[in-house]
Amino acid sequence: MGTTTEPTGRSLVIDDIGSLITSDPELGRGPLGIVEHASVVIVDDVVVAVGAAGAIADERIDAGGACVLPGFVDSHTHLVFAGDRAAEFTARMAGEPYDGGGIRVTTDATRAASTAELDRLLRLRLAEAHRAGTTTIEIKSGYGLNVADEVRSLEIARAHTSESTFLGAHLLPAEFEGRADDYVEVVCDEMLRRAAPHARWVDAFCETGAFDADQCRAVLDAGRAAGLGLRLHGNQLGHGPGVQLAVECGCASVDHCTYLSDDDVEALAASSTVATFLPATDFSTRQPYPDARRVLDAGATVAIASNCNPGSSYTTSMSFCIALAVRDMHMTIDEAVAAVTTGGAAALQRSDVGRLSPGSAGHAVILDAPSHHHLAYRPGVPLIRRTVGPLGAGGP
Amino acid sequence: MGTTTEPTGRSLVIDDIGSLITSDPELGRGPLGIVEHASVVIVDDVVVAVGAAGAIADERIDAGGACVLPGFVDSHTHLVFAGDRAAEFTARMAGEPYDGGGIRVTTDATRAASTAELDRLLRLRLAEAHRAGTTTIEIKSGYGLNVADEVRSLEIARAHTSESTFLGAHLLPAEFEGRADDYVEVVCDEMLRRAAPHARWVDAFCETGAFDADQCRAVLDAGRAAGLGLRLHGNQLGHGPGVQLAVECGCASVDHCTYLSDDDVEALAASSTVATFLPATDFSTRQPYPDARRVLDAGATVAIASNCNPGSSYTTSMSFCIALAVRDMHMTIDEAVAAVTTGGAAALQRSDVGRLSPGSAGHAVILDAPSHHHLAYRPGVPLIRRTVGPLGAGGP
Repeated sequence: MGTTTEPTGRSLVIDDIGSLITSDPELGRGPLGIVEHASVVIVDDVVVAVGAAGAIADERIDAGGACVLPGFVDSHTHLVFAGDRAAEFTARMAGEPYDGGGIRVTTDATRAASTAELDRLLRLRLAEAHRAGTTTIEIKSGYGLNVADEVRSLEIARAHTSESTFLGAHLLPAEFEGRADDYVEVVCDEMLRRAAPHARWVDAFCETGAFDADQCRAVLDAGRAAGLGLRLHGNQLGHGPGVQLAVECGCASVDHCTYLSDDDVEALAASSTVATFLPATDFSTRQPYPDARRVLDAGATVAIASNCNPGSSYTTSMSFCIALAVRDMHMTIDEAVAAVTTGGAAALQRSDVGRLSPGSAGHAVILDAPSHHHLAYRPGVPLIRRTVGPLGAGGP
Repeated sequence: MGTTTEPTGRSLVIDDIGSLITSDPELGRGPLGIVEHASVVIVDDVVVAVGAAGAIADERIDAGGACVLPGFVDSHTHLVFAGDRAAEFTARMAGEPYDGGGIRVTTDATRAASTAELDRLLRLRLAEAHRAGTTTIEIKSGYGLNVADEVRSLEIARAHTSESTFLGAHLLPAEFEGRADDYVEVVCDEMLRRAAPHARWVDAFCETGAFDADQCRAVLDAGRAAGLGLRLHGNQLGHGPGVQLAVECGCASVDHCTYLSDDDVEALAASSTVATFLPATDFSTRQPYPDARRVLDAGATVAIASNCNPGSSYTTSMSFCIALAVRDMHMTIDEAVAAVTTGGAAALQRSDVGRLSPGSAGHAVILDAPSHHHLAYRPGVPLIRRTVGPLGAGGP
């Protein structure tokens, strides 16, 4: 893992692919650009050819007729943390409501952990995500909630991915109780100044109980001025101003989108802001699932991400997210696969990942299955036979 | 894998267990009998001691503080088949209803496959189930639906598990269209006579579109006369006579139980018939989930099984079933874990599996997690670090 790769001229061919998802409609069938009986040639982590079966290369992977698809792009995670919240999960399943308040438990544990321990835990989770097929991952801060710990979290994240996100405005830390505006000022000033060199993105949690629209707008404006790209958490626990604010500010993505008004859907469809669904969160908080059909049918771009975090969604499995999206959000399997590949890439404003076409990153998933349909048809089964390409490499 | 094990005196200790589920309330805390900081000593595939940390053995597995629980008992699968039905699944997710009719597609593919091919496919599925923590598995016939192919399916299943089930009354084969009673006569006569030597159980599918109560009763009566134990599919797609018939006939288990009347729940609670839920089926057919609380609160014994089959539930993952049972059936995590261990064992009338107490089978699952709560808290993540013990060994 790392953010750069030295060119070596090393070539790899993945051969005997039964069904290849290129994500490029010009290369194959349908919106996923499916090519049957294909090969992919990768040199220095970049796809140089598709369909050229039998090419000579330094290394050859025999897919044995299986399905190969682009490595998953997980555009929303909170992987820098210590401790777990299994007890809170168990209590919630027994009937206690989820209000996001447990974030402070993780903040305490994260602040108390050594940097080496945080890095060790992050590496374990990244290895788990990589085994599950993820090759591009966004990682947010947001469990530090003071200058030193937010910066430390981003430094740790940045060592593993170019897609690091400053989320100082995740929740009000206990020491600012009753003084949210004062905290937002710190976030927009010293915290942002020291965080920005380690982040590509800024994000805020726009929700009752977290931050309101004015506070989030202040964070996004300050982040933009500091040269960061914009993203927003919104409309998770109820209707709210998140989606409209995200569209108005030109955010790359607005994430959750569980409660949407007609105006929200219209705004998304008319914008380039991606609607990112986090169905594993709705699973683990026993919330209703978003009405994905409404958003897709309106023409908005849709992504699906894991939201891996210890409170509301402790899974790294994009396959599990696909199964939920199909079963409970009524997305087609093709739409769900697009949402975890090109959709995730769009949410990160990346055109080099989420596809396997000449020039794109050579990040691929080889399934233990003949078709991508099995990702929903075989729920809970670890179908990722092999993940090709490092996690976190590449990107702006 | 196999049904017998030669004694060798070989000993194994699983050490440094952070949290051990023994399923024996006399050995530890709560109904799961949880022991902290434990060891398990296994000789010749049988548990000889629990809690004796630091014992000397031929082999030592260091659990590193993780949770260890009894190997899962999957009491309902249909693993002998050829072909898949991904296209049917995709169509169903796009809105086509599930009526069980696709079973004939699998019957055609299974009849056409060679015995070697059926055995090869079964071995792959058993290896997948074993990696996912299953150590005792029931396997039904039911895709042969003629004498030769039913017997062949059972011979193949029997080579891998003692828990083989004759399900000639799965669905009416096409060649008996309009002559269900004639088919049931064949099932109860020649088919049963030739199947019985290879089966421990007889089962029937009591459902509109499959077989009615009289036909199922005939099959169960004939099976009992042939020395087989009784089980029944019932109440999957709507209310029906299945549960009452199962209780009346003294079935070990009635499986699905999605649609239950008050009388059904009362009958289950007053009987020794186990109510087996198959939540992955309700997931993959987009059916409502059973009201497990009602059945548990009435005092019935509950099991959870995968129902792994290519039509309505193509998963081997008992962890996935646990996550669904907790999220969507409102079972506690402890109840769900009991349902896949002692519950599955009760559904197979076995007292040697589903527990880790002296005298029980030495079949264990070592998690990549500190607690069994993570099986629901981390949905979709393959948390089974290691499965100890062969799949299919032991049993009557």
